[in-house]
Amino acid sequence: MTVLLVHGDREYLRNPGEELQTDLGVLTVPEDVQPGDVLATHLDEEFTVRRLRGPDLFHHFERTGAPMLPRDIGLVVGETGVAAGDRVLDAGTGTGVLAAYLGRIGAEVVTFERKEDFAEVARDNIEMADVADAVEVRTGDVTENLDELGEFDVLTLDTPDAAEVVARAPDLLADGGSLGVYAPFVESARDVETAARESNLDDVRTMETIQREMDFDERGTRPSTSPVGHTGYLTFARKT
Amino acid sequence: MTVLLVHGDREYLRNPGEELQTDLGVLTVPEDVQPGDVLATHLDEEFTVRRLRGPDLFHHFERTGAPMLPRDIGLVVGETGVAAGDRVLDAGTGTGVLAAYLGRIGAEVVTFERKEDFAEVARDNIEMADVADAVEVRTGDVTENLDELGEFDVLTLDTPDAAEVVARAPDLLADGGSLGVYAPFVESARDVETAARESNLDDVRTMETIQREMDFDERGTRPSTSPVGHTGYLTFARKT
Amino acid sequence: MTVLLVHGDREYLRNPGEELQTDLGVLTVPEDVQPGDVLATHLDEEFTVRRLRGPDLFHHFERTGAPMLPRDIGLVVGETGVAAGDRVLDAGTGTGVLAAYLGRIGAEVVTFERKEDFAEVARDNIEMADVADAVEVRTGDVTENLDELGEFDVLTLDTPDAAEVVARAPDLLADGGSLGVYAPFVESARDVETAARESNLDDVRTMETIQREMDFDERGTRPSTSPVGHTGYLTFARKT
Amino acid sequence: MTVLLVHGDREYLRNPGEELQTDLGVLTVPEDVQPGDVLATHLDEEFTVRRLRGPDLFHHFERTGAPMLPRDIGLVVGETGVAAGDRVLDAGTGTGVLAAYLGRIGAEVVTFERKEDFAEVARDNIEMADVADAVEVRTGDVTENLDELGEFDVLTLDTPDAAEVVARAPDLLADGGSLGVYAPFVESARDVETAARESNLDDVRTMETIQREMDFDERGTRPSTSPVGHTGYLTFARKT
Repeated sequence: MTVLLVHGDREYLRNPGEELQTDLGVLTVPEDVQPGDVLATHLDEEFTVRRLRGPDLFHHFERTGAPMLPRDIGLVVGETGVAAGDRVLDAGTGTGVLAAYLGRIGAEVVTFERKEDFAEVARDNIEMADVADAVEVRTGDVTENLDELGEFDVLTLDTPDAAEVVARAPDLLADGGSLGVYAPFVESARDVETAARESNLDDVRTMETIQREMDFDERGTRPSTSPVGHTGYLTFARKT
Repeated sequence: MTVLLVHGDREYLRNPGEELQTDLGVLTVPEDVQPGDVLATHLDEEFTVRRLRGPDLFHHFERTGAPMLPRDIGLVVGETGVAAGDRVLDAGTGTGVLAAYLGRIGAEVVTFERKEDFAEVARDNIEMADVADAVEVRTGDVTENLDELGEFDVLTLDTPDAAEVVARAPDLLADGGSLGVYAPFVESARDVETAARESNLDDVRTMETIQREMDFDERGTRPSTSPVGHTGYLTFARKT
Repeated sequence: MTVLLVHGDREYLRNPGEELQTDLGVLTVPEDVQPGDVLATHLDEEFTVRRLRGPDLFHHFERTGAPMLPRDIGLVVGETGVAAGDRVLDAGTGTGVLAAYLGRIGAEVVTFERKEDFAEVARDNIEMADVADAVEVRTGDVTENLDELGEFDVLTLDTPDAAEVVARAPDLLADGGSLGVYAPFVESARDVETAARESNLDDVRTMETIQREMDFDERGTRPSTSPVGHTGYLTFARKT
Repeated sequence: MTVLLVHGDREYLRNPGEELQTDLGVLTVPEDVQPGDVLATHLDEEFTVRRLRGPDLFHHFERTGAPMLPRDIGLVVGETGVAAGDRVLDAGTGTGVLAAYLGRIGAEVVTFERKEDFAEVARDNIEMADVADAVEVRTGDVTENLDELGEFDVLTLDTPDAAEVVARAPDLLADGGSLGVYAPFVESARDVETAARESNLDDVRTMETIQREMDFDERGTRPSTSPVGHTGYLTFARKT
């Protein structure tokens, strides 16, 4: 299990057996390290051991592109209702944060990434998030593998050809199962929604989400003057 | 396990052993009923058995107030990174959808509801969602129980006095743990953010979320002219 | 000049010389009626005379479709900087509120409406708004008249073929002049923006505007839970 | 009349009689200069003469703070329905763009600026915008002058003590007249709306406006990922 070694504002990622060398001194992470342990360097500086949590993944995952934001991952979880024990088909993997989150909430995930080098990075990230048992990263194009994959409780898609998979959703989804598709452009969101409607899925809807941080200062309260911009459209549908 | 009996657009909630009487005839749900079973009425009309999934909770939970929306539940999950195995302290329970969702993703939840009759309804809902093992609904005021509760990975709050609990968050949260607070009004959100800052929590931020459904029709594409309105502000913070 | 006769919450539109008959009695509007006059019915009930102002147009204009909202009219005025004395080419007229507003701020407006019956209604509305000297409503298709119209300070367009007019904007606009186009759908907005860029106009931008009313009550402050939906995209560009 | 001298992308502001010296040579602006004139430097480089239009004011006004944006000016114009010939009371002047816009659409404006040095800059700006006949910039606090100002068709306010003026609006506004108040913070917007309701004004409403630019590129269409942030709340009300 990869752990975080924390000293004040500083945190370092290490595996059991690895060494940490900083200006605060040197320490070796014990093989049986546990969250909550306190490790001292040879200069007697202390580091607290912490396990990685969801928000840590965004800082420590190696990136192969812009990872999906916590808010969009959350919206996918909230709207699909994915739960522990669910089988999830995910494509494309990218940095792997969505797949890791799904693994962390107990789902069994098969995720497809077309590029072998990206898939390799994603596998390392999944390992780091301690969910390698739950998340299988396959290299390849999901659309070429749809016949052999079996049935899923939830589909999560973030690929240019998502509409093609959505057209097959009635075969891929268990009764009551849901899909969530992330599309950065309105044209692709339109294709996805159209495919969902033509497949006779239910509760088809495409949403865009605008979030603003609030500024609370002594002069008063207002939405931030520097908000987060558009991320993507999210299309949801269900087989009922 | 409560199941859904589905026939076309119609669905009915029943427990094993219970009877379904409709114009399509009568059937009794077997004690060993399983999702995927097909049950026939005495008139030979068929019902498919389906387990309850996340989105079903919003339709079938008995309500004691407006339940939190899937989007806000999702945002809480996405931003706090709550995962299977996490200990969560939740207040106030209300209808119980957030607690049920958290239970469904494998968290162990203690949730406080001040009103005994609301707590009773929430317990029934939690039972129906098949997460009674994971979610304990306590009747009472969380602020009067903070000393005895121990440590949590995540706090989720939707009560008028949330700021008071946030002030205690450094004691209640494990290292790296997060809190998410839902506040309908800007004044209460301000109190919560202020309490989080004064408690020296990190990554303190209050967000408001605007969602719009997209209309795709043959004339063109546009945001819906009848959008979803404001639900609430969400404040997040972390102990690092 | 058409005037409003106001008694408490009630207001009636009348021209000089016309009669008002209500349960409050009968009165005849004098030919030399002036805003501020107080007129009494034969039952001695008093009506105050008020001239029509901008906001009144939305209530009293006869409609031939959904009129542009005050906010969108305002955004067109603000972004184009249209001023008194400016020559404006407007198409299509519709109910005529934009043309009337432009006339009321001192612009000379030529506005095209394709449908003769709509143009007739618009002419009546323009008369009622007391800007018939400033606004000429022409029946016809603006795209068939572009060669003979001369030069304008501002173009305002709300027609399905707006992109065609925008392509001619460099010939139609005076140096420094601006155009503003209202498009309900993203596809038409895209066509307009593309035409503006291909015409080498400057400061080309398409905006969408989301407005929410705030609720201030004794419990607290929040954005309304029932907001105004999407109206349209606005594209602006300038010849510099 | 101040004019713009334009050569390609470059533009310079000059008054009649003034000299322009650039690397393109030297020229003197004739006393009888007119928009549309072409002036040559001693090196035979040509500059086209253009009058200042609304959008130019934002680039060429000297600033004493962040000027109100075209969109907010437009919303004030659209929602109040201010028209040529209307008497407007404005406070505080700031950079003067709102007052200049109002002057440019034919309104007679009295605008109050508390700081003498800011008022001086605003007067210069108003002169540059060629609306000195229409806009009177007074130095002082509008709340100390309310008894002597007479009646207005429209009030436009952007001061910390706007609520105090709003409380007097029934005396200051003509029948049917409107007010528009810009407030950066929700607390001040609340005070203004409360004052408007307590003054028994009609159509009281506070709006917040979110605008996003659209990105149209070859990959697809989406809202910009870098939107404009919050500017302010706008409260409108009317005396009817």
